Amino acid sequence: MRNTYLAAVDIGGTKITVSIAHYEGVLIKLYQRVKLEGDNTSIPEQVDALIERACRRIGIHKKDISAVGISTCSPFKIKNGYKVIVSPNLCGGLAKERGVIPNDWTEIPLEEVLTGKYPRVKSGNDCVTSVVAERLFGAGKGEDNLVYVTWSTGIGTGIFVDGHLLKGKNENAGHGGHIYIAEDGPQCGCGNFGDLEALVSGSAIARDYGEGATTEDVFSAYRQGDTKAKKVIKKAAYNFARGMASINALMDTQLFIIGGSVFLNNRDILLPLVEQEFFKSFPALTSGVKFTPSALHTFLGDIAALSLVMPDEWIEKWEHDRPWENAPPAVVLEDNGNE
Amino acid sequence: MRNTYLAAVDIGGTKITVSIAHYEGVLIKLYQRVKLEGDNTSIPEQVDALIERACRRIGIHKKDISAVGISTCSPFKIKNGYKVIVSPNLCGGLAKERGVIPNDWTEIPLEEVLTGKYPRVKSGNDCVTSVVAERLFGAGKGEDNLVYVTWSTGIGTGIFVDGHLLKGKNENAGHGGHIYIAEDGPQCGCGNFGDLEALVSGSAIARDYGEGATTEDVFSAYRQGDTKAKKVIKKAAYNFARGMASINALMDTQLFIIGGSVFLNNRDILLPLVEQEFFKSFPALTSGVKFTPSALHTFLGDIAALSLVMPDEWIEKWEHDRPWENAPPAVVLEDNGNE
Repeated sequence: MRNTYLAAVDIGGTKITVSIAHYEGVLIKLYQRVKLEGDNTSIPEQVDALIERACRRIGIHKKDISAVGISTCSPFKIKNGYKVIVSPNLCGGLAKERGVIPNDWTEIPLEEVLTGKYPRVKSGNDCVTSVVAERLFGAGKGEDNLVYVTWSTGIGTGIFVDGHLLKGKNENAGHGGHIYIAEDGPQCGCGNFGDLEALVSGSAIARDYGEGATTEDVFSAYRQGDTKAKKVIKKAAYNFARGMASINALMDTQLFIIGGSVFLNNRDILLPLVEQEFFKSFPALTSGVKFTPSALHTFLGDIAALSLVMPDEWIEKWEHDRPWENAPPAVVLEDNGNE
Repeated sequence: MRNTYLAAVDIGGTKITVSIAHYEGVLIKLYQRVKLEGDNTSIPEQVDALIERACRRIGIHKKDISAVGISTCSPFKIKNGYKVIVSPNLCGGLAKERGVIPNDWTEIPLEEVLTGKYPRVKSGNDCVTSVVAERLFGAGKGEDNLVYVTWSTGIGTGIFVDGHLLKGKNENAGHGGHIYIAEDGPQCGCGNFGDLEALVSGSAIARDYGEGATTEDVFSAYRQGDTKAKKVIKKAAYNFARGMASINALMDTQLFIIGGSVFLNNRDILLPLVEQEFFKSFPALTSGVKFTPSALHTFLGDIAALSLVMPDEWIEKWEHDRPWENAPPAVVLEDNGNE
């Protein structure tokens, strides 16, 4: 397994990144704005073209790639035995506001198209791949009961219980952003009213503050003692903590690993607020639970997708060498293919 | 395994039942009010005495019992490698209102005491044992992604994801009654404000209606067109449905099996209300989920505890013969031991 290459793919609402790794570490990373035009095989074709391009740049052939690991936004649906992406962030045919996304896709056959081109393809929601990576290489080593949470523009979770990674019927387990926290409340991008993402995400914090402030503006105002910012952020932390208490009541977890820019940039403010509220919940269930920041944070995108397909022999070496910390910077490609 | 006997124990806040079964079916069932006095080994000693008594009545010896399966109220804590019960319904030292429960226990060493007396002892929360039983013998046969929910005086859940029974660090996974549904709200027996049990349980329905009505009075009033009863029950169904949507967002389940007296006595009213609200949530996650009533309902107590320890050979026969349907009625013992 030492003479093989792996491709790691990260698909978000705005970009695709592709990295190529071998036993010693990451060799190259390409970054491109995701193109949402064309037919619904456009994204897998962009992924394939990027992998091919990355291979050429490091002097290997596409057929040297033994497996492709993919982190992507979701949800998924199972169709003909393959996962297809049914995310309203990518599929114009599923978006709440028509016309914002320039396509009418209702599903993206990612796995099926790429499985025809590579020997092994595994994909997962980005928080699910993140919890796999944090358990292998990060803050969750040796832990069988853990939850990775991203607190960012949105909210998502990936969950192990009893050492088992939760998948569910369509591999949509861990959509922790869409649990209800309020009896009513603001509308989420998914259509729900009063779910965790609608109440506490970075977007929600900016919306609740108003005045055209960004999420980081609200935290800056908090640090300067602004009363409204304190109220908005305390309420978000209150609801986030209650969301974690709900997840814990169902999973009886040991450890919450929190990532995402909203949390990681402001953990000095948020972590004490979250812990204070969380431990007010039913002590027989919450007692002994730990919160910790993501250990892989800025590296999570690459390593998460790789974790899905990484051979055991590599894992031992990577755990020791941490080669993702020395990965080359991403090469940013323009829409016309130039750098 | 055909010449062996199993004991099934069901421990609630008010009673203990013990049944003895062999390959052909259930032989006897004893029912006794639980005594909450004495030291914290009192409950395991009551269980042991009831098993011994049941054995005597059917002419076998305690040593003929090869395994004891126990359904019990929880939560649990792990201590010295054994699960101990830390339920505020049994332990006076953990109860919210001191003095209501006539003991000062903070834990009950159920497994440890009984493991010294029987070759094999397995215990589980009553909703966790119920989901095991429904999957073996009831409405969940062949399903790998299912949730059993009891809608009764309280709310509880037991959960399989990907064929894996969720346990968690202290075997407290599935405390679905204690997920938050409202940003604030009435207080639950566990201390939480605004959790599912506090909002939708049988007790909550009676409390919200007021006027000294029982839960069933409120449903009778609903059937007679009473406006307040309609409002109270619709709100409970609304919040129950949102609780199920939260559980589904985390588990990506296929099937909710609903039991408990509040639901089973009133499913004509509740099921349509619950389904109508549930399917308003994020369609990519809720689409295709099914709701069905418990298939074992009144038999669930016995069969759930047995399911934990039943040999495979028995399971095949019981699945076919359904002997729990012909179990003898419970013999009710008075506190002094008389019938």
